[in-house]
Parts: sequence; C-alpha cells; structure tokens
Amino acid sequence: MDRRNFIKKTAMATGAVAATTLAAPAVVSAKTQWIAVSAFGKAGLLGQALGEFAKFVGTASGGRLTIKVYHAGELVKPLEAMDAVLSGTAQMGYGAPYYWAGKSDAISFVAAMPYGLTAQEQNAWLYYGGGIAEADKIYNGLGLKFLPMGNTGNQMGGWYRKEVKSVADLKGLKFRMPGLGGEILKTFGVNVVLLPGKEVLPALTTGAIDGTEWIGPAADLGKGLFRVCNNYYYPGWHEPATILDGFFDKKAWDALPPDLREIVERAAAATNLFILSKFQAINNTAMQKLVREHHVKVRRYSDELINAIGAKAAEVLPELAAKSPEGKAIYKHITDFRRTMLDWSGYSERAFMEVRDKASL
Amino acid sequence: MDRRNFIKKTAMATGAVAATTLAAPAVVSAKTQWIAVSAFGKAGLLGQALGEFAKFVGTASGGRLTIKVYHAGELVKPLEAMDAVLSGTAQMGYGAPYYWAGKSDAISFVAAMPYGLTAQEQNAWLYYGGGIAEADKIYNGLGLKFLPMGNTGNQMGGWYRKEVKSVADLKGLKFRMPGLGGEILKTFGVNVVLLPGKEVLPALTTGAIDGTEWIGPAADLGKGLFRVCNNYYYPGWHEPATILDGFFDKKAWDALPPDLREIVERAAAATNLFILSKFQAINNTAMQKLVREHHVKVRRYSDELINAIGAKAAEVLPELAAKSPEGKAIYKHITDFRRTMLDWSGYSERAFMEVRDKASL
Repeated sequence: MDRRNFIKKTAMATGAVAATTLAAPAVVSAKTQWIAVSAFGKAGLLGQALGEFAKFVGTASGGRLTIKVYHAGELVKPLEAMDAVLSGTAQMGYGAPYYWAGKSDAISFVAAMPYGLTAQEQNAWLYYGGGIAEADKIYNGLGLKFLPMGNTGNQMGGWYRKEVKSVADLKGLKFRMPGLGGEILKTFGVNVVLLPGKEVLPALTTGAIDGTEWIGPAADLGKGLFRVCNNYYYPGWHEPATILDGFFDKKAWDALPPDLREIVERAAAATNLFILSKFQAINNTAMQKLVREHHVKVRRYSDELINAIGAKAAEVLPELAAKSPEGKAIYKHITDFRRTMLDWSGYSERAFMEVRDKASL
Repeated sequence: MDRRNFIKKTAMATGAVAATTLAAPAVVSAKTQWIAVSAFGKAGLLGQALGEFAKFVGTASGGRLTIKVYHAGELVKPLEAMDAVLSGTAQMGYGAPYYWAGKSDAISFVAAMPYGLTAQEQNAWLYYGGGIAEADKIYNGLGLKFLPMGNTGNQMGGWYRKEVKSVADLKGLKFRMPGLGGEILKTFGVNVVLLPGKEVLPALTTGAIDGTEWIGPAADLGKGLFRVCNNYYYPGWHEPATILDGFFDKKAWDALPPDLREIVERAAAATNLFILSKFQAINNTAMQKLVREHHVKVRRYSDELINAIGAKAAEVLPELAAKSPEGKAIYKHITDFRRTMLDWSGYSERAFMEVRDKASL
C-alpha cells in the first residue's frame, strides 16, 4: 500500500513557503486552529474519513479546536505530510506509519508486520496491550504524538501478470511491494520496486513491473489494476492489517487542554473503527465485480510459497528490527503480544470461522 | 451471557417510585441532564466503560449534556434497565439486546446469531451495511433509539461438568444457555435453563444444572466457574460475537441538538471499539491462568456436534425469525450480509489466520 522513501528531507522548503503564505496557527481567546496535512486524496474513503474527523472535532469542541484539512497535494505532496508537521507548517498529519520509513528504521513496524496481527488484534495491542505507548516512543523521538486513526484490515496478496506457484517463480520477478514484505521478497531474488501510486498502472502496462500489491478489492478495483493483471493472490501475508496514523506536533498536542485532547483521542478511535468497518463492508462487493465482470482469477498462494516466505520472515524481520533500539523494542513488544493472540484467536475467531459454514443460513 | 426473560413488565412500579425520588430530567438554560441505567455492575469492564463514556460526553459537550450513570442494582435491577427508559425514569439504558427479548421477538437477532457474524463483520454491518437502521426499526417500534456500544467478541462455547462428544450426550443435559443458541439446543433434548448470573455458580455446585455458557476466559475466570466445571468448550458457535446496546428514549434523543447527538454517537462508537479491544487483549491471559493454575481442559466441540447443531440452526433460526415481521426482516438482512462476509473473510481473516503460524516470530 505504501509509497515510502520518496521524500525525506526535501519538504522543508515547501513547508517554509507554505508557512509564510498561510496564517500561523493562532491561539486567540482559547480558540486553537490547527492545520492537518494528509497523505491521502480528498475523494477516497480515507480523505472523507479525515474530513469527518476534523468536522467532528470542531463541533464537539464548540469551535475551541478547529482543524483545517489539506488533502494530498493541496498543500504539500502526499509523502511530505510528516515533514510539514516537523517544520511547523501543520500541527497534524495523516497517513500510514511506513510512509515515514525515511524518518525512522522502526516506524514501519507500527503499520503492519508480515505474518503478524489482524486488525482486531492490533486494536487490542494498541489500546490495551501498551501499543500506543510503545509506538509513541518512536513518534515522541521525532517530536510527535501518535494516535491510531484507521485500519485497512487484511490486504490482498497482490496482482501478478503471470501465475506464481513456487519459490523458483519469484526469482527475477519485478514486483512493487514496499515495507517489510518487500524486504522479505528481496531475499528470494525478487527485484522489489518502489513506485508512487500513480505510476503503478503505467509501469504494469509497459511491463516495467510484473506485478504489484496494493490494498484490497475495494481500493484495487478503483485503481483499475485488473486491466493489466489477471491473477489476484491471497492471503495478504505481508499486511495482515495496516494501521493508519494520526500524528501531531508534540508541543501543539501538549499545549491542548485535557478535554480537547480527549475529544481528539475519542474522535480518532471512532475514525479508526469506521474506516476498518467500511473496508470490511465494501470489499466483497468489489471482489464480486472483479471476478464476475472483469474475470479476475482469485488464487491462493501455494503452501510452498507461504511456508518458504514465512520461514524467511522469521529470519529477516528480527534483522530489520535490530537496526535501531526502538525497532528491537517494538518488534519484541509486538511479537510477545502476537504469541498470546495465536492462542486466543485459535480458540475464537479462527476456530469459529472454520466451522460456521456448517450452518447454511 | 444473557439472563433474559426474567423481568418484563414488572419494572413499571419500581420506575415510578424512582421517578418521584429523583429529580425529573431538567432542561435548564440549554443544559440537558440524563439518567442512564445499566444491566452491568459498576466494577466490571462494562461498568467502567459506561462510566468513561458518560464522563466523556459531559466533557466534550462542555457540560451541556451530563449523564448520571446508575449501574446494575443502583436504581433498578439489571434486567429492568429498558423498563426504566420506557417509563421515563431514565433517558438512556445499557445492556445487551437479548436481555430485552421480552419486549420483542426480533431483538435477540441484533445481539448475536449462532453461526453468524464475527465482531469485525458486525461492525461492518452496523456502520456501513445498514445494520443500525435495521436494528432501529425494532428499537423505534418500542419508542427507543439504538446505538452499538460494545462487543464481547467471540465467546467460548461453555462449561460442562462432563465431556460432551456426540449428539447423544446432549439428550437430557441441563444446560444454561439463553438466547437463540438455547433455542437450538432444545431441539436436541437439552433441558435449557435460564438463570440470572448470580445463581449460576450455586446451581452448578448443587448439580441443578450440568453446565453453562457464560462469556469468555476473562469474564469466566472472575466468576469462578472452573471450581465446578472442568471442561471448557470452543468455538462459541452460539455467540460468534455479541453486540452491546446503548438505547435512548426516542423523544429525549430527538430533542437533542445535532451536535450533542453527534457527540453521543462518536462516543458510543469509541466505547464499542474499546470494549472489544479490551476483551481481546485480556482473554488470553485469563485462558492461560485457567489452564495452568486451575487445570481446566480446553476442548473443541466435535465435528459431529458442530455439524449437527449447524444443520439444526439453519432450520430453527428462520422459524424464530418468522415470529414477527421485524424478525423476518432483520434475519434476512443479517444473513444476506453474512453470505458476502463468508466470501470476503474466506480470502482475508480466515485465510490469513490459517497460515500465519508458518512464521515463527
């Protein structure tokens, strides 16, 4: 899903220009005005959700905190959102943690971990497993405050021009997959490519890449990937669920009165739930359309691939985590929690889903 | 989990007494004061969550809407909460939809459906599948407004003094299981018993019942059921996830200004997410304690039982739904949605959970 590593330290100039153009955030008679910059477009599900979040904060606070939203490209480029907050142009940013991998070796672990947690487990980890505090060690280190503010749910494994059945089929494949999943695929000789979203379909069309992961049926349908690729793989081992992040200039956050912080926190939690619920609700209709109208072949990754990639994940992920003390810490924190979820989800969600079709309701 | 059918029309008197004791809800200079009555005790996870919800509404509204919470037994008995709202004693109630089965033949379908939806799917149905509107047809008919306000997640199948392996083992069993699951078990010759929560452990101890379902490890551990029963079954086919309901006097709800309604709606959504996340986070620790310290045997229902009960569910549930037009409508609504979820969750959550232990993280 992500398009990380495209901008890193280049946004300062843009930020500075914007800051002179726009009024500086003012605190006038206990009214606070924030600027939010987003990595997502205005029209999509995520842009809409951010707009509703901002509107609600204004309403609930009786106008004491207003958030003016700039969607992707409206003030800065999508992947410059964090730079805009760090430079003081904006007080809030919105995106996915692995978009900011250039800022921190550890931050991608906040977004998603291959073979890791489901969305429901991520929320358990975040709110009652110490996850927000653990992620905040990374964000605080950058001068930011983190809040979970959405989840894509389980993603699809990706689109391939040709079938991939075995480890041998991976060698030499030119595949777009950013984040931790891409790092694992590299070890199989995959030529992992990073491309911004709008370049993906053209690159597939010209054959510059052989395939790509994106998000899930609802988002992928709109992107038109089925026009070039016919093989749509599951399960999304690389992103079993992906946390979206709201992040705030730590000084602006700390300066908010406690009641306004609470409004933002609860509003972010509601947004988190709404986004996950919406993806879950609309994905199947999109999948049916892909299969029935566009004749996409939905294929399960072979056991050979799942087993080989899983074994490699257990080698590569600890190495990637070990690049920084924060990475080591959050990797341990998540994998400790994951072990307890393997047990409990084995008794609950997994066991139930395996039997429920015994009733033809 | 539920203890339905214990009170129905008996609470009016209590309600009337309470109404004269307490000040009637007053609207003074745009300040609204509500009374909320809960079916849950103050000390538990659900009581705490309700307290935090009410506190937040007061904070976010700047005191324009304050909700005074009475937990179970503080103003009326647990299962009298809906009567208290209907009689005007309270403006808000909190519980689980099947607690109010005496008010509506259809309302239990809002809570949980055997072999039905998981929590994540229920939320997709509620917020983006028309579920809230569908449930509101039932609640509106009673003079109430419905909001989802919590979810237990997948429950455990229940506690049994002796092992149950086959359909033959069910015959003559005295088992406490309220709701739709109990109706299905009756058809196998189970003597289905309804008991309020505090009578369950005594009844198990004296042998008046042979077993009971309750909630899940975290709640069940505290209840001490392991002292009498050693066999703890999964999966919870009868309640794959259970929605908790906030409900409001429709007139009081409609009289709220839109911004206050929005605060209550978002606060309820955040509470919904927090409760599900907390159950998910703490269940496994409790399960480990049950197994390691109390030597509970965790057993999977046999395929024979799962298949037979599933087949029967497909006969019994439509019959129960057909008792009322609302029941018929909501049953169709949920089962239509469920079919799309069987497909999508088959590609996503289920497929992923079946392979993720291939990585030893």
